[in-house]
Amino acid sequence: MSLIEQLNWRYATKRMNKAKVPVEKADKIKEAIRLAPTSFGLQAFKVIEIEDAALRQRIYNEACQQPQILEGSNILVFAAYKKITAELVDEYIQNIAKTRNIPVEALADFRAVFDGAVAGSEEQNFLWNAKQTYIALGTGLIAAAEEQVDATPMEGFNPAALDEILGLSPQNLGSVTILVLGYRDTVEDKYAAASKVRKSTEDLYVKL
Amino acid sequence: MSLIEQLNWRYATKRMNKAKVPVEKADKIKEAIRLAPTSFGLQAFKVIEIEDAALRQRIYNEACQQPQILEGSNILVFAAYKKITAELVDEYIQNIAKTRNIPVEALADFRAVFDGAVAGSEEQNFLWNAKQTYIALGTGLIAAAEEQVDATPMEGFNPAALDEILGLSPQNLGSVTILVLGYRDTVEDKYAAASKVRKSTEDLYVKL
Repeated sequence: MSLIEQLNWRYATKRMNKAKVPVEKADKIKEAIRLAPTSFGLQAFKVIEIEDAALRQRIYNEACQQPQILEGSNILVFAAYKKITAELVDEYIQNIAKTRNIPVEALADFRAVFDGAVAGSEEQNFLWNAKQTYIALGTGLIAAAEEQVDATPMEGFNPAALDEILGLSPQNLGSVTILVLGYRDTVEDKYAAASKVRKSTEDLYVKL
Repeated sequence: MSLIEQLNWRYATKRMNKAKVPVEKADKIKEAIRLAPTSFGLQAFKVIEIEDAALRQRIYNEACQQPQILEGSNILVFAAYKKITAELVDEYIQNIAKTRNIPVEALADFRAVFDGAVAGSEEQNFLWNAKQTYIALGTGLIAAAEEQVDATPMEGFNPAALDEILGLSPQNLGSVTILVLGYRDTVEDKYAAASKVRKSTEDLYVKL
């Protein structure tokens, strides 16, 4: 299936049938998310997998009781770092040095450019990091479609409550989106057979 | 090539060789962007393709003179709507009704939920719309990799200057990112052969 076919196949699944996503499929989706691009490659976020049933129930209550939270197989919470701390940058620079087998000192110029780019308030940092998580979320949606796994991206939850439930704030993290993986319930989900609605090419694109 | 192979193949290309991307490949990438998910499916953005050489030069000057702007084949500017106006919502509701062959009146409940979700200041609307464009940007990066076309996502430009150059503000639009499509210059781009730097699975994922 080509990417265009995958994008046409997928939809934001409204009801799921509680079937489990095989571990090898979930692992491929998680690997794609790990490889997703972010600005500067910083990946200033964590992905929290919810395995605890009581925690899932609490998230359900804070996510407008959207049924996919209970009916889905895997619950992935994307949480962005609030402040880009010197420690986060250090870890990143060290990862580059290790991966590319170069001394940390050789990255001094890069680090200077980078430090300039990420200077800013906690609010600005969080916003920038949060935007990058949307690339990873979108990559996860495509990866799920490639595995013929259904998925629901969610913004409809109380982020402050979720941060509290997951203990995110003391870790310098804030919740941004939830990705539910599972399988569509074709009986209960009236959108499973609905035509995809998109702007026409003429409406979306402008040439200048 | 699987998605994971595509993600490993791609990188944020730093130098391009001025080769043109064939129209049929660019069209497939554009089609994938058109099909990308957005919250509620609203697609509150436009993609501006820069064909005019003088315009490209002006964008180059406002984008930190990043060489890909001149060396790339296709320049796509993602511009999000600033305010979600009643007109935008009307167009969307009408598109749903037309695509799914249902009366507009049948969408009254959906519209009420939708109107509540998109209520907010222009700043909040723009931010929400801007976040969605990152999903489309990421989809474009994957689509390019599938076509073995190189791509560079860019945030490093002066958005106010770009808005002015492209006449976006009077259209209720603001520039968010630029996607350059083209082909890597493997001689000039020292990153073309560099190992991809990513957090480990253990570092990115947390289980709760």
